[in-house]
Amino acid sequence: MSKNIEALEEILGYKFKNQKLIIEALTHKSHKQPYDNERLEFLGDAVLDLIVGEYLFFKFASSDEGTLSKIRAALVNEDGFERLARSINLGEYIYLSNAEENNGGREKASLLSNAFEAMIGAIYLESGLDIVKPIAIGIIERNYQEISLDSLFRDYKTTLQELTQARFGETPEYIVVASRGPDHKKEFEVAVIIEGKEYARAIGKSKKIAQQEAAEMAVKILKGDV
Amino acid sequence: MSKNIEALEEILGYKFKNQKLIIEALTHKSHKQPYDNERLEFLGDAVLDLIVGEYLFFKFASSDEGTLSKIRAALVNEDGFERLARSINLGEYIYLSNAEENNGGREKASLLSNAFEAMIGAIYLESGLDIVKPIAIGIIERNYQEISLDSLFRDYKTTLQELTQARFGETPEYIVVASRGPDHKKEFEVAVIIEGKEYARAIGKSKKIAQQEAAEMAVKILKGDV
Repeated sequence: MSKNIEALEEILGYKFKNQKLIIEALTHKSHKQPYDNERLEFLGDAVLDLIVGEYLFFKFASSDEGTLSKIRAALVNEDGFERLARSINLGEYIYLSNAEENNGGREKASLLSNAFEAMIGAIYLESGLDIVKPIAIGIIERNYQEISLDSLFRDYKTTLQELTQARFGETPEYIVVASRGPDHKKEFEVAVIIEGKEYARAIGKSKKIAQQEAAEMAVKILKGDV
Repeated sequence: MSKNIEALEEILGYKFKNQKLIIEALTHKSHKQPYDNERLEFLGDAVLDLIVGEYLFFKFASSDEGTLSKIRAALVNEDGFERLARSINLGEYIYLSNAEENNGGREKASLLSNAFEAMIGAIYLESGLDIVKPIAIGIIERNYQEISLDSLFRDYKTTLQELTQARFGETPEYIVVASRGPDHKKEFEVAVIIEGKEYARAIGKSKKIAQQEAAEMAVKILKGDV
């Protein structure tokens, strides 16, 4: 059973105007109804892209569009939205079939992320961009201590450490295998070692950047994404 | 030399408030200035995604999100924005270097598309979504007689015919190479032949759909995109 929507409204600081709309936004397609949240997810996805894009546009007024795209890509994706959805306990409000419920549906990244997008789409539809914007930004800012290329990358080192501790009971080791170039244009090549085995290598303008990129690759390898 | 912005304002039915902003939106990076239109393009791209997404959401109130995504993808891309940019003669207003000018820069799809996105980003920034939305939708509706999955696909057959007539002096031929399945669930496999040579094959629920998909593939092959 889904929880009463009022608790969600309190967390969001927003009162839904159209009950049918928010119920649609929270309805997974497994919950056999004439509606589900996929259309609202389509809309909400674009709303979030714009909100995050504009937020970064102003926050990083001197960053080029390549950097902005990179930061946005780190925020606007299934993992990112799952994190935001969890932070407002959104899983508790999703309508889904018993089968999907028993299958751990409320905990699935895709269901959580889609419901989050659909909820944002619903608020946009009934109240417009100016209302949904501070709600979305508020949730994002509460979830990221710092939004920057550096800190979003640093997340990969944290993620990798959590992964290796759970799986191997140890922390990854980073080794500078090479440094090249003149002082003002130095490049570092870093390898990440877990249990004595090299998992990935990356080159960056600083050791930190190279470590973070190597960690990202290692995370993907360990998760079986590559 | 770029044309006076007033003519553009007349075509758009919109008066720019911030001259610096619209100049930035029309400045290609080749035009050595402390600014160029890449950041505004980043923003405008997201603005257009939302505007088109919302437009389709309402126009196709009973289409699922897969169909909406497909239609949006057919509208929101470099070719689509190039077409919109040309329809308002945007190329004439772009600031670019002499080298890029002599290199046909004003006619390049990427420059036109990027300037269009940046211009939409600039209008959004200074006037908000409610003002930029009807401007963008107006331009789109003037450029597409009909917006539907069917008609946007049909464009590929037209595009292919234009391409093959220009390049080979003949029209493509479509052949049904197979049809399968029971009457209520038939599938057609269609091949597209140009100068006696098969260029692509596609399967669809109708001959028309299969033809259109095959035409799309053939266009990409002829353009060297695949």
